[in-house]
Amino acid sequence: MKTSRLEAFSDGVFAVAITLLVLEINVPQGENLWHELGDEWPSFASFLVSFWVIGIIWVNHHGLLDHLKRTDRPVLYLNLLVLMTVVFIPFSTALMAEHLKSGADEEVAAVVYALAFFAMGIAFNLFWTYIVRHREALGVELSDEQVRRTTLTFNIGSPFYAGAVIVAFISPAAVLVIIALVAVYYMAVGMRSPDL
Amino acid sequence: MKTSRLEAFSDGVFAVAITLLVLEINVPQGENLWHELGDEWPSFASFLVSFWVIGIIWVNHHGLLDHLKRTDRPVLYLNLLVLMTVVFIPFSTALMAEHLKSGADEEVAAVVYALAFFAMGIAFNLFWTYIVRHREALGVELSDEQVRRTTLTFNIGSPFYAGAVIVAFISPAAVLVIIALVAVYYMAVGMRSPDL
Amino acid sequence: MKTSRLEAFSDGVFAVAITLLVLEINVPQGENLWHELGDEWPSFASFLVSFWVIGIIWVNHHGLLDHLKRTDRPVLYLNLLVLMTVVFIPFSTALMAEHLKSGADEEVAAVVYALAFFAMGIAFNLFWTYIVRHREALGVELSDEQVRRTTLTFNIGSPFYAGAVIVAFISPAAVLVIIALVAVYYMAVGMRSPDL
Amino acid sequence: MKTSRLEAFSDGVFAVAITLLVLEINVPQGENLWHELGDEWPSFASFLVSFWVIGIIWVNHHGLLDHLKRTDRPVLYLNLLVLMTVVFIPFSTALMAEHLKSGADEEVAAVVYALAFFAMGIAFNLFWTYIVRHREALGVELSDEQVRRTTLTFNIGSPFYAGAVIVAFISPAAVLVIIALVAVYYMAVGMRSPDL
Repeated sequence: MKTSRLEAFSDGVFAVAITLLVLEINVPQGENLWHELGDEWPSFASFLVSFWVIGIIWVNHHGLLDHLKRTDRPVLYLNLLVLMTVVFIPFSTALMAEHLKSGADEEVAAVVYALAFFAMGIAFNLFWTYIVRHREALGVELSDEQVRRTTLTFNIGSPFYAGAVIVAFISPAAVLVIIALVAVYYMAVGMRSPDL
Repeated sequence: MKTSRLEAFSDGVFAVAITLLVLEINVPQGENLWHELGDEWPSFASFLVSFWVIGIIWVNHHGLLDHLKRTDRPVLYLNLLVLMTVVFIPFSTALMAEHLKSGADEEVAAVVYALAFFAMGIAFNLFWTYIVRHREALGVELSDEQVRRTTLTFNIGSPFYAGAVIVAFISPAAVLVIIALVAVYYMAVGMRSPDL
Repeated sequence: MKTSRLEAFSDGVFAVAITLLVLEINVPQGENLWHELGDEWPSFASFLVSFWVIGIIWVNHHGLLDHLKRTDRPVLYLNLLVLMTVVFIPFSTALMAEHLKSGADEEVAAVVYALAFFAMGIAFNLFWTYIVRHREALGVELSDEQVRRTTLTFNIGSPFYAGAVIVAFISPAAVLVIIALVAVYYMAVGMRSPDL
Repeated sequence: MKTSRLEAFSDGVFAVAITLLVLEINVPQGENLWHELGDEWPSFASFLVSFWVIGIIWVNHHGLLDHLKRTDRPVLYLNLLVLMTVVFIPFSTALMAEHLKSGADEEVAAVVYALAFFAMGIAFNLFWTYIVRHREALGVELSDEQVRRTTLTFNIGSPFYAGAVIVAFISPAAVLVIIALVAVYYMAVGMRSPDL
């Protein structure tokens, strides 16, 4: 089975999800617009963080699929699992932004926001693990050393996302900072060792 | 006529439809957020079911078009028919979720929800039937045995969707279970015989 | 300049526009759902008509670009003009549906609805005319006879759309019928002479 | 790393962003529809301007990536930065339209609208600058003369967008005119020297 349509469909879902994020920012209508735009900071901050996380996941997804010569049904289904967690992010982002703004139960919203990224990390790890285990069938040419290093890198996100779930109970806004730092970390790693 | 743009356009429609599903989930605004999120279970459940059904239809669509070397006008038009039923699903999903939540006329909503999948099954079968009948013109290389087996598989969905329409009058929530089981069945079949 | 990205971007816009149509259908919330769904008929009817018109325009667009070996800036800009009229259709469709439902100033809404298709027809004709005039530079291999026949076909839509603008003042619902008949006509022509 | 998926993902984001613009136009519901549609002129005007700016940025993006044989991580990240500013445009466009209609704090809305295009110009220039500096690594075959001329062209937009920010304080509607003129300028340049 060819990988081209897997890529095209995935790129479409990533593209729509990342663009829908902006639909969740309310358009302030009233007078005193500078002030109102300032009050919207949780929307802008969560938009920013979610945009870059989805963007970086796309970059990693892109790098990963570049190594596949073929695909099979489990790859397609595990990819759907990854996409489902990506598609959920505009919802968790809007929830986060609304509750940071109103202050109502913002801890719960931050828990859901962090959990959504945690689920995405887990789904991506399952995807990666399956591909590594079926390297030969899928035509993946990665040395054991490359696999070991990439696995290590991919394993770092999930504990931090899990940590963010706990931090959410103490400081909801700090969750945004943690998620942003994980994103910066993945960007830095990608710059240093771009082979995946 | 090349099949590449048929695939690109179809992938786009599938990608947008599957991602729009999340727009239909209401973002709860108030205090007591855990409770409110719990009350949203029909949205999450219908999102989940519809996401996987669209995803699996995409996998089958992908597997099917992989066999076509050429395309003609009826293929394009029948493909549009399939896409029209896919595009309709975010609407039927939102209708289902809203009425499961409010309890108002939920049987009717469940009938429409099941009918939408039934229509999709019928459209996909028409698409498949046309392709099989014009195998040579479209450059499809499938043995009679493969055609027979795949036709059998594709014929199993529609009666279940029709059954779901009837079940809707008795238990609207059970419709979600039936549709989910059909999806699981298609995933299992796809894993066993991935040639289509 | 390669045509592949022109196709990818156009397919994306067509795919998003055709899928957004469904977002414009209101999800009825209340009791007596069969009745409410019946009252939504203008939404379903305009969704249906607009879906097929966009779909058929995509098929023609697809058939046309298949003939291009190269592209230039005017082609890109004229293509943007076509896409702008396509993107406008979810708006005109929602306007039509809302006013057919409420009965308020439905003639005006029908005029706008018909005008939107008229604008699309004109834009597509400009696109076609430019391509025909620069056949050699764009690597288009069409005989004079093919060009003559296709030009005739493409010229038939616009007068009907213009006629629909006038009919709108008398019977808004009849506009839907006229637009649908033009779509059926183009489908029939495409079936008979699929070379474009 | 291949450039094909970079293009597919970018095309998806451009396509969704340009199509979402239409979602921001309110569908007038009442009687006296001609009048209401007339009152919506700021929506139509900002839709028109934003559509063409995004469209032209896509054309330039397309022309630029056509020259790349390979891509690396910084290109992917800088491309994400460009896309983030593109995705923001439906928001700034809706803000502009709403405040031009209501007249409430329209200067502020116009400042944000102009700033959004300014940010897009800066992001595109960073993207271009990086690509030029790593021409060899990315397999870009452009003469020094071509680079010099294109850099000049790309440098013209940003000062005009900056000027539009200042004009916004005096005449919000004039901002639309300035942005539109920059778009026309880029179209004219693209027609004359289509090599990029």
